[in-house]
Amino acid sequence: MTGTAAPFGADDYRARMERAARTAADAGLAGLLVAPGPDLVWLTGYAPTAVTERLTVLVLTPGRDPVLVVPTLEAPDAAKAAGTPALTLRDWTDGKDPYAATAALLDSTGRFGISDNAWAMHLLGLQKALPRTSYASLTDALPMLRAVKDEAELRLLAAAGAAADATFEEIRKVPFAGRKESDVAADLSDLLRRYGHSQVDFTIVASGPNGANPHHEVGERVIEHGDMVVLDFGGLKDGYGSDTSRTVHVGEPTDEERRVHDLVREAQEAGFRAVRPGVACQEVDRAARAVIAGAGYGEYFIHRTGHGIGVTTHEPPYMIEGEEQPLVPGMCFSVEPGVYLPGRFGVRIEDIVTVTEDGGRRLNDTTRELVIVN
Amino acid sequence: MTGTAAPFGADDYRARMERAARTAADAGLAGLLVAPGPDLVWLTGYAPTAVTERLTVLVLTPGRDPVLVVPTLEAPDAAKAAGTPALTLRDWTDGKDPYAATAALLDSTGRFGISDNAWAMHLLGLQKALPRTSYASLTDALPMLRAVKDEAELRLLAAAGAAADATFEEIRKVPFAGRKESDVAADLSDLLRRYGHSQVDFTIVASGPNGANPHHEVGERVIEHGDMVVLDFGGLKDGYGSDTSRTVHVGEPTDEERRVHDLVREAQEAGFRAVRPGVACQEVDRAARAVIAGAGYGEYFIHRTGHGIGVTTHEPPYMIEGEEQPLVPGMCFSVEPGVYLPGRFGVRIEDIVTVTEDGGRRLNDTTRELVIVN
Repeated sequence: MTGTAAPFGADDYRARMERAARTAADAGLAGLLVAPGPDLVWLTGYAPTAVTERLTVLVLTPGRDPVLVVPTLEAPDAAKAAGTPALTLRDWTDGKDPYAATAALLDSTGRFGISDNAWAMHLLGLQKALPRTSYASLTDALPMLRAVKDEAELRLLAAAGAAADATFEEIRKVPFAGRKESDVAADLSDLLRRYGHSQVDFTIVASGPNGANPHHEVGERVIEHGDMVVLDFGGLKDGYGSDTSRTVHVGEPTDEERRVHDLVREAQEAGFRAVRPGVACQEVDRAARAVIAGAGYGEYFIHRTGHGIGVTTHEPPYMIEGEEQPLVPGMCFSVEPGVYLPGRFGVRIEDIVTVTEDGGRRLNDTTRELVIVN
Repeated sequence: MTGTAAPFGADDYRARMERAARTAADAGLAGLLVAPGPDLVWLTGYAPTAVTERLTVLVLTPGRDPVLVVPTLEAPDAAKAAGTPALTLRDWTDGKDPYAATAALLDSTGRFGISDNAWAMHLLGLQKALPRTSYASLTDALPMLRAVKDEAELRLLAAAGAAADATFEEIRKVPFAGRKESDVAADLSDLLRRYGHSQVDFTIVASGPNGANPHHEVGERVIEHGDMVVLDFGGLKDGYGSDTSRTVHVGEPTDEERRVHDLVREAQEAGFRAVRPGVACQEVDRAARAVIAGAGYGEYFIHRTGHGIGVTTHEPPYMIEGEEQPLVPGMCFSVEPGVYLPGRFGVRIEDIVTVTEDGGRRLNDTTRELVIVN
């Protein structure tokens, strides 16, 4: 999910495109092929109204000016994007071969990085037009391209986080018992927009046994007194993402519920404390997981500990076993361990954290104590 | 854009999957790899809550049971889809290699059809896991897979078209002069939902000179007396698409405006009359284009004449020069010629048409005369 409201100008986009092309060259790539979606928004500010089978691709080649290949029909919209003054538009008309037009811009034996979400159809078209080229997804080739945020981006992410926190402070006051999950989710959506979000990406309200499914979004279940309720919500504000989770309880919790919540809170704290420059991403996962496993709940923590955030709410770097990428100041990601007890309840606590020179800084800071709601 | 509200059951999806696998075999393919999006919705009724970098893919192999590879986190949602009883779910956990898991299901030297919109990242992962396989996009390999609609689908498309027509009958009564394009677009969106759409895909309101940009969506321009206004709107109702365009005029038109509108109406009629089984798609384009070119406006008709519609509002078959696919009863597509006079105004008239045994039948039928609005 992407948005275009970020307050950047042509010079910002020019600098990003130059940096991306340089990074590609350093990685031995002949260039980058950037598809509509978050990569294109980040590099040019351009988001087509609809992504269709018509090829739109930004070609970044080290040492050459960026070229945005667009369907003629969409050229007037592309011309208006904030980053367009920093590139050349090349349009193609229905019935013409856009792969031939793009191939003419490429080294016919080069290796290229291509946006993860570029359409397979377009990759196949390019592979056919230039059979001696090879390709790697940006996540494989340059996973950290958008991962390190600059000061302006950090301010936008902090503002999005603050808006999500304000949303939590309001939602904890609404009635839960007797209302449907979908009703509370609608409240979350309204609040996120009221606090400045232009796009709501998810509003998870997972009550009682639904909480044991980490990706349960929302349903018609009526929330009852005695339920644990996982809340996980976020979206885009001024083009940058928010994502926070808190687990609340309707009325007084049992001892076990409180113990599991305490455990997840301790795991989240351990993950947060592991954050500092030079530490591998997987160490954040290990730190959080060790706490949960140490208490005998390891098998109930069934997802990785976190994911990056920026112009999307879900991107590299991933805090997962096997990810050896070292943390770098300016990276932003979630730390969100959870415990999911099938058929019973779930707990998840999530903050966005950014890497500083000497540790981590949370961009969410509502209480991590178990909040009792009505 | 896709929706999941279509009233089909496991038997319907089983039949579609069997037909797709057979069609693939007939085309010399070892199988189909179906990504989240319209293909997956059509074949299984399943639409993941969010499409992320985690691999979800339906593997259809002639003579074998369908397998849906899904991330463990999303397995509970996938289990609830209407088509899931007709397939086997195979989940994979964060940190495992989903390409190896998928490769194990595939003929290691086969040629596969893959959804157009599958992520390049996933195609590259499969190409790496099975270097002797080859791939073709579904649009190249089986472009007509979803193109021929059955009776139930035609009823849903007709109902969506009727809802769009009801929307036009209401929108022609609202005030245009003095209001922003975005205000009229909001009315269109509200009306489409009121008439049963669950998803609005586009609400183009292109007034005066904006009408000369066929993909101008909507802006803050205040509509004036004397403007031509292109209206083009649609979305999904019960999982199937609507898409219609009418061009209205605020107050009395000039002779030239009326002449251009008459010309486009005549072209649209000619395109519609060209529709019958066995005729190539390009003949529909040629018939409409000949009328406009014959009047000297050929250079101002800058897009193809139409596109298919079904579980999306934009899919094969395309009515375009070079498309030799013969029309088959049950195909549904738009016939939407236009004339775009730069800096001045545009006109487009669009109906969805389905191919019958002996011709075509319109699924939109509001007046194609120039409607005068206030």
